[in-house]
Amino acid sequence: MAEIKNEIVQHFGVISQGEWTRELNLVSWNGRKELYDIRGWADDHAKCSKGITLNKTELKSLRDILNKMEL
Amino acid sequence: MAEIKNEIVQHFGVISQGEWTRELNLVSWNGRKELYDIRGWADDHAKCSKGITLNKTELKSLRDILNKMEL
Repeated sequence: MAEIKNEIVQHFGVISQGEWTRELNLVSWNGRKELYDIRGWADDHAKCSKGITLNKTELKSLRDILNKMEL
Repeated sequence: MAEIKNEIVQHFGVISQGEWTRELNLVSWNGRKELYDIRGWADDHAKCSKGITLNKTELKSLRDILNKMEL
């Protein structure tokens, strides 16, 4: 399987800490245009868990949905 | 591979529409305790794409991070 390359362009915050540190970052995968990215990372960021990528419009939609919720 | 069962307990909103409809829901997977869930769904919700599950604390953290960002 081809090696997957990632570059964390910008770090926005830690969502939770545990087996992985779950973070919201701006990540470029395999040299492609960077996307917002929610996933878990090992401390050295050499390994990561499954996660999702979102574009800016999607991230805004998610933020607006969350702000309407009673959490 | 065992069939994966899901129950969408509560729907909070549509994040985006395209090949999949990406949604934020509260989902119980295989009868387990429901978790917040961000992923894409087919229109009939019979199929879904990869996504992530978050507990309440994580969802609050994500919301707070998003509210500090200039989007």
